[in-house]
Amino acid sequence: MATRVVLKTYVKSGFAELSNFSIDHVPAPSRDQLKSGEALIRPLYLSVDPHQRGRMGGQSTYVGGYKTGEPITNYLVARVAASASSAVHEGDLVYHGEGKWQTEYIVKASDLTKLPDQEGINPRDYLGVLGVTSFTAFYGFQVRGCPKAGETILVTSAAGGVGQIVVQLAKIHGLYVIGVAGSDEKVEYVKQIGADKAFNYKTCGDYATAIKKAAPEGVDMYFDNVGGPFLDAVLLNLKNGARIIGCGITSQKNVTSANEQYGLKNLFYLISKEATLVGINVSGHFNSPIHDEFVSQISNLYREGKVKFKIAELDGIEKAPQALLDLYDGTNFGKSIVKV
Amino acid sequence: MATRVVLKTYVKSGFAELSNFSIDHVPAPSRDQLKSGEALIRPLYLSVDPHQRGRMGGQSTYVGGYKTGEPITNYLVARVAASASSAVHEGDLVYHGEGKWQTEYIVKASDLTKLPDQEGINPRDYLGVLGVTSFTAFYGFQVRGCPKAGETILVTSAAGGVGQIVVQLAKIHGLYVIGVAGSDEKVEYVKQIGADKAFNYKTCGDYATAIKKAAPEGVDMYFDNVGGPFLDAVLLNLKNGARIIGCGITSQKNVTSANEQYGLKNLFYLISKEATLVGINVSGHFNSPIHDEFVSQISNLYREGKVKFKIAELDGIEKAPQALLDLYDGTNFGKSIVKV
Repeated sequence: MATRVVLKTYVKSGFAELSNFSIDHVPAPSRDQLKSGEALIRPLYLSVDPHQRGRMGGQSTYVGGYKTGEPITNYLVARVAASASSAVHEGDLVYHGEGKWQTEYIVKASDLTKLPDQEGINPRDYLGVLGVTSFTAFYGFQVRGCPKAGETILVTSAAGGVGQIVVQLAKIHGLYVIGVAGSDEKVEYVKQIGADKAFNYKTCGDYATAIKKAAPEGVDMYFDNVGGPFLDAVLLNLKNGARIIGCGITSQKNVTSANEQYGLKNLFYLISKEATLVGINVSGHFNSPIHDEFVSQISNLYREGKVKFKIAELDGIEKAPQALLDLYDGTNFGKSIVKV
Repeated sequence: MATRVVLKTYVKSGFAELSNFSIDHVPAPSRDQLKSGEALIRPLYLSVDPHQRGRMGGQSTYVGGYKTGEPITNYLVARVAASASSAVHEGDLVYHGEGKWQTEYIVKASDLTKLPDQEGINPRDYLGVLGVTSFTAFYGFQVRGCPKAGETILVTSAAGGVGQIVVQLAKIHGLYVIGVAGSDEKVEYVKQIGADKAFNYKTCGDYATAIKKAAPEGVDMYFDNVGGPFLDAVLLNLKNGARIIGCGITSQKNVTSANEQYGLKNLFYLISKEATLVGINVSGHFNSPIHDEFVSQISNLYREGKVKFKIAELDGIEKAPQALLDLYDGTNFGKSIVKV
């Protein structure tokens, strides 16, 4: 039998409770059931992420809503148990972006990204330091941001999953790094991982003035995880030729209609400063040379101790609902992962 | 004596009258007055442009306000009469971005851009088809826009100085071109110069719906001359990987404070569509290989009749104030130029 975590009832308001989930058992799929192009995989580690809350409400979000009676899905790493495709082979380590919280299942091989087994890299690291948040940081900062040593970068949500990797990569590339976070503890952490300056946006007063104070000559790159009024303030503090990497808009996460959306007023500074705003979204870049390059570069930096990443691990697929709840009550510290 | 056009009184509201200007005579400068690095030049043709209105009010704009008692300045082409610089020589044709409306004057040679004397190209063409609006179109569309044959481009102010060159270049590059303009006559003109579709934004109703109708699958490139609500509507109609070339914000030209500025609400579509907004400003690119490339490519296209450009010429520097007034009462048709 295969064990799976199923959404029993939609979570309409507030956060989920354990009673919203059930742990089911279904017949284990066998290799005889494989059609051409399919693979049978066994998840090793499950990623547990805040964005999953939005998918439990029964409404479609940009990655699609969950359905009751079906397994929860999210990023995971797995071993191939059997394959009817030339793309992956038995024993391969793979990443599945929309993987099921189920101990064994059949999937189209084209939906899998093959991962290397590397010395000093645990398979779970592909959900952590080598996972989607790090890939987003690498892709945005290094591939699209065109960083140059000596430039000044500003990073919001600098203690977050994406931001902390941007801070560390920017230091490695010789940039002057200014991190912005939402608590004094996070500000302290951002400094610990290498930021030259950091400030708390909740206590800094006027954003434009705080940015001007931290970067009197303006910023060459802004890694934007928040959008909204902070982005408007950064637009007043750009150097000529600046790049803004548009990664997230967490400042608008509670906005439910376009009318409530914050209206950006300073976009014309992109013209006078010949600046560029680059929207990034790595979902289409997993099976690409860029992803291979990311895995290679970040694996080396991680092994050498030059990039750090904190993981919080729970053991057993039946712990996965609890891991989701822990995200919201402050129990966890670091990237949440469940060992199947 | 040198003849010059001077701003006599500031234009505080409404448009200028002839009485706001005076035609003065000052001693002609001589080659003996040249210091090292300077050149004595004689303007041949003056560019006359709408943006000059904003400079007559006595307030500084992004290119600086005019001062009473001093000559009007704007783009011009000139001959070098004498030089104390190795950068330009007597007889050279040059472009001066902040040139004086004066028949002879001394200038730093480093402020001049040397232009080639070419068969089939009149010096005045460097203010027209080879001038700043065309350079802006070339730089934005071709250099920063990375066009590919078969893509769909949307252009606002498509009958304007920049827009009409974008439309023609886009057709030459094999794109499907949708032009937007503010009158039915302009819409007709945009079709005449090659747009596949064109519509009048003043009568089209809801912008987003009109764009969706013209480009059901979305646009790959948007050449934005207007900003504001039209840009917000285009953001809802982007293809994956789209580029927005941010060139102008004429929709906000009457806005005098940040509070009145239209607030953009749909910028997050840049993230979901992995789109890029590229601010362009050619002022720093005149003495560059890009400008040489622009002159070479557009000169060839113009001689071959593949790019057309309409010029309205007045004769005599003392006609320059009248040429400015003609811009606003509909007398002129085509790019306004004064022969000195």
